[in-house]
Amino acid sequence: MIHKNTNVSRGNINKKVMFKEYDVIVVGAGHAGCEAASAAANMGSSVLLVTMNMHTIAQMSCNPAMGGVAKGQIVREIDALGGQSGIISDKTMIQFRMLNRSKGPAMWSPRCQSDRMMFAQEWRDTMENIPNLDFWQEMIEGLVIKNNRVVGVRTGMGIEIKGKSVVLTNGTFLNGKIHIGEKNFGGGRTGEKAAHGITEQLIELGFESGRMKTGTPPRIDGRSLNWNLMEEQKGDENPEKFSYTDTPRLTKQRSCYVTYTNEKVHEVLRKGFDKSPMFSGRIKGLGPRYCPSVEDKINRFADKDHHQIFVEPEGWNTVEMYINGFSTSLPEEIQYEALTKIKGFENVKMFRPGYAIEYDFFPPTQLKLTLETHLIENLYFAGQINGTTGYEEAACQGLMAGINAHNKVHEKGDFILKRNEAYIGVLIDDLVNKGTDEPYRMFTSRAEFRTLLRQDNADIRLTQKGYDLGLASEARLERMNFKKDEAAKIVEEIKTRKITPDNANNYLEQISSSALREKSSFYSILKRPEIEIENIRLLDNDMKDFLSQYDDEVIEQAVIHIKYESYIEKELLMAEKMSRLEDLNINPNFDYEKLLSISIEARQKLKKIKPQTLGQASRISGVSPADISVIMIHLGR
Amino acid sequence: MIHKNTNVSRGNINKKVMFKEYDVIVVGAGHAGCEAASAAANMGSSVLLVTMNMHTIAQMSCNPAMGGVAKGQIVREIDALGGQSGIISDKTMIQFRMLNRSKGPAMWSPRCQSDRMMFAQEWRDTMENIPNLDFWQEMIEGLVIKNNRVVGVRTGMGIEIKGKSVVLTNGTFLNGKIHIGEKNFGGGRTGEKAAHGITEQLIELGFESGRMKTGTPPRIDGRSLNWNLMEEQKGDENPEKFSYTDTPRLTKQRSCYVTYTNEKVHEVLRKGFDKSPMFSGRIKGLGPRYCPSVEDKINRFADKDHHQIFVEPEGWNTVEMYINGFSTSLPEEIQYEALTKIKGFENVKMFRPGYAIEYDFFPPTQLKLTLETHLIENLYFAGQINGTTGYEEAACQGLMAGINAHNKVHEKGDFILKRNEAYIGVLIDDLVNKGTDEPYRMFTSRAEFRTLLRQDNADIRLTQKGYDLGLASEARLERMNFKKDEAAKIVEEIKTRKITPDNANNYLEQISSSALREKSSFYSILKRPEIEIENIRLLDNDMKDFLSQYDDEVIEQAVIHIKYESYIEKELLMAEKMSRLEDLNINPNFDYEKLLSISIEARQKLKKIKPQTLGQASRISGVSPADISVIMIHLGR
Repeated sequence: MIHKNTNVSRGNINKKVMFKEYDVIVVGAGHAGCEAASAAANMGSSVLLVTMNMHTIAQMSCNPAMGGVAKGQIVREIDALGGQSGIISDKTMIQFRMLNRSKGPAMWSPRCQSDRMMFAQEWRDTMENIPNLDFWQEMIEGLVIKNNRVVGVRTGMGIEIKGKSVVLTNGTFLNGKIHIGEKNFGGGRTGEKAAHGITEQLIELGFESGRMKTGTPPRIDGRSLNWNLMEEQKGDENPEKFSYTDTPRLTKQRSCYVTYTNEKVHEVLRKGFDKSPMFSGRIKGLGPRYCPSVEDKINRFADKDHHQIFVEPEGWNTVEMYINGFSTSLPEEIQYEALTKIKGFENVKMFRPGYAIEYDFFPPTQLKLTLETHLIENLYFAGQINGTTGYEEAACQGLMAGINAHNKVHEKGDFILKRNEAYIGVLIDDLVNKGTDEPYRMFTSRAEFRTLLRQDNADIRLTQKGYDLGLASEARLERMNFKKDEAAKIVEEIKTRKITPDNANNYLEQISSSALREKSSFYSILKRPEIEIENIRLLDNDMKDFLSQYDDEVIEQAVIHIKYESYIEKELLMAEKMSRLEDLNINPNFDYEKLLSISIEARQKLKKIKPQTLGQASRISGVSPADISVIMIHLGR
Repeated sequence: MIHKNTNVSRGNINKKVMFKEYDVIVVGAGHAGCEAASAAANMGSSVLLVTMNMHTIAQMSCNPAMGGVAKGQIVREIDALGGQSGIISDKTMIQFRMLNRSKGPAMWSPRCQSDRMMFAQEWRDTMENIPNLDFWQEMIEGLVIKNNRVVGVRTGMGIEIKGKSVVLTNGTFLNGKIHIGEKNFGGGRTGEKAAHGITEQLIELGFESGRMKTGTPPRIDGRSLNWNLMEEQKGDENPEKFSYTDTPRLTKQRSCYVTYTNEKVHEVLRKGFDKSPMFSGRIKGLGPRYCPSVEDKINRFADKDHHQIFVEPEGWNTVEMYINGFSTSLPEEIQYEALTKIKGFENVKMFRPGYAIEYDFFPPTQLKLTLETHLIENLYFAGQINGTTGYEEAACQGLMAGINAHNKVHEKGDFILKRNEAYIGVLIDDLVNKGTDEPYRMFTSRAEFRTLLRQDNADIRLTQKGYDLGLASEARLERMNFKKDEAAKIVEEIKTRKITPDNANNYLEQISSSALREKSSFYSILKRPEIEIENIRLLDNDMKDFLSQYDDEVIEQAVIHIKYESYIEKELLMAEKMSRLEDLNINPNFDYEKLLSISIEARQKLKKIKPQTLGQASRISGVSPADISVIMIHLGR
């Protein structure tokens, strides 16, 4: 019945192959994978993005929001370098707020609520428009390794796809295990399969791996809430945005709502503690300290009788709500009962329960600063696989891994950002040198140069680098240079122009600022803490006219320079000192065994991490200043 | 360390329960599940829609299109009754064509290409706006049964949710097994988990189950195709739509492209035959006869040297293309190599391979005409679980099951459509009485009254019924009545007005239509096969003026009535005869054992299917006209 032609394969020499050899293969299409694939492809690499399901590219698995304290700065840095997260966030946001506006500019942090579906769709559209970026839908179950170098991936169907480099961005999928109360089951996200095979192979290759845990709150039906009992949290009146390009600004916004847990909620939750997978020890991995589950919060802060809850809409039109602050893995009926005790939630309907998920990660001390692994050449790790948490942390690692994979394959240099150049630099430096045993999240406090690393100047810090990489466009560079030049002009003018006591003191008295005793520059007046640029406008019509030529963004830049000059200079000085250590390169084959006078711990860590500079060596936990002096001597200084 | 309050549960009598008892629980959120849930909720039932993943509601798992021959008629019927598929198709289509325009109106069939993402999003938005429709994301693993009546469902986490009725719409997920070449793995769709537990429980309850198979083609990257080598297939110049409501009309459209397989393609495909899961017998279930895989086509029609391929875009912007006509489960490298031999596909890049999927179905002879199961009260099946194939077939079953579940719970009568009322009636009557051992697809040839069951008159046939159910709105009813009245006025006028030979013959000669010999009505002229309404306009200015007051849709309705009057009357007569049998109800407890003179086969089938009318009994395969006479006598006729 069946026509069998066993003889038809004639060995065609020019036979096409299903997959060419790619420059970069990216495994996983979350925030890290999408940035990695886009960056490498935009720089000119041929890239294959492999995902288990093309319908779930760039899913926001947890909260429908981008940015936040320190994280917003990272999104702006990604944008300045030529990454996509800022642009996509701008196009799909439903609300924008600049957090910490009342504090100094180092603390200002952009944050948006996103339309989850639009965000995913926009990422997919963006990537489909990058010519040398291909897609393949399948689970990757292994790497192809030759002589300690990765040369491809192996799919679940057994296809080997050749790649000169591979970026792994597996998120929570590696041996993912979902916990709700006493139940647990395999899964990479709710409703999605876990991925097996990669961890096992990497361990065989000599990698160390560990388990981490993260969690997510229940999703609920907004139609079942009583909004009148909660506090509305509107977006900013004049919403800004993430990207330095001309992405659109929001003209309408959707509100979030704030409510609180209370003693009754806590009482119900405590009923489930004996069934908690975290408290019972069923979950071995450590969870994110600064994004704890609600049971963790009431357990650790037993004296606090309430915790804040943010009700965040998942999009422009959907009734689905994300309950920020209520991450939990208690039994679902406990989750439900506790929710009903929250003000405004009396008649709550759930769409799905919160859950905890355990997954494999690889301690990031096994990485170079380029995110390439020490053990396997051309193999890069980015995102949660490195023990981080957060979309922004993942995205920026993806970007850096994508850039470095491209550069390596094209025999260009390493692209490393220093701690005084970017939060991205701080993040990777921390990971590689200190490692982490709990999900690593970025904070402003992790950066010693945070007055330099502001959200307003990420373009000035990084656009030139992005341009030199071939990632940021010329238009970006021009726009940044224009902003810098214009700001400099304003600073110059404010320094030059002066005002007499007669003209100034009347107004200064009105606003309780001390009177001038002699003719003074506007510069000296603006430096006073109580004086804002608005006061300068009111003080002097010529200045008002002069300033009216400039955009708010440029004026803000000039004002920050003037008002925070001394802080900025101090940090620049410190950074310069530090960079002297950074400039002292250490040969990767440097023999630490011969340094008999350093501590055993230092020797072990140095051998493992192989710091690329003396600066990096100095930041490894367990390496003392005395050890650094010894190395410095051996380096010939 | 952990605060344990074992004493806090004080047994609150007014304690809220996580789930109320629902009137209708719908399992699965594909075409069938979405229509079922929407219909029951819109009629006033409290409904819970349970889905494994809220991000994949209303996914178009196979081709991105709605409608087609006989299927388009079903979509219009769903719309006329007050279902959603027509409206959602209209809002998300990227191309519309009325198929078979050159044939008689019984064959005219609306078909659209859809934007896959928008289609899913629109369904979700629609359902979120139905007040008494709730959602729950989890896999359902069992039913809760009491005294042969379903009273709820049991989730994967072990939650029991109470429901007065349950509609199962599991699609291809029940023990789904995906095949590609010699490989196979569990899965409900590519990248998604299979569902286990329900089949096993139903079998224990006494249900018969079987295996079926369906397949899907590879998805490819449109950027890799050479469009110039293919034929463009544009949408209609004046695109119509599915819904009788005022949904928008397309103002721009996206084209499909046509190309062909050839001997080289077939040669490559044959190389994979020995690895084909279908030919090797690894797949036991039968596949859809009229939507065969490409390997099936070249195997069965060995003399045909080419087959048509439609390249269908998956949305407005995406580069992803669906390769209609190239469904296959051959090894992926064979799929690829064969594709490269197709004209225009020389440099094709695949996104994912085609595959076959085997899944459990339940022979639909176990159902009543309401889609309720005989064995378990208040349990309804709809869609692929009943052995059908196609979105439209699934959607209309969902609609009917949702309506009947609502009616049953609210102690209203059964809602059954007769074979002369709707394709939906034909479909369900066929399923229940004849069963099916291969995926059942609708064709116009399955309907004996297809001149009555046209796409242009589904509103006239069904809107009143939908309105009486409380499903179709009053506005729909008014709109339909207006259309009917207006069409009647036109028919009347065309019958009344006459034209003399002097005024007519000159023009009639021009268009080679025979001359009038006496003053004649426009009615008699329009009845001529060569005369269209446009000719009447050209023939007579008064008629032209008269017609200019009416919408095209109304004029079309009148013209069809006039031109196809005799066919319509013949079918109406036949239908009337038939309905005499249909009016003879058979008591469900009728004792066929006492009918000694009927055949054993007839007795067995009648006992199993329990026909509700003598008409239904007459259509059961194996029941002869002689058997019917015997029953009729026993019914007292």
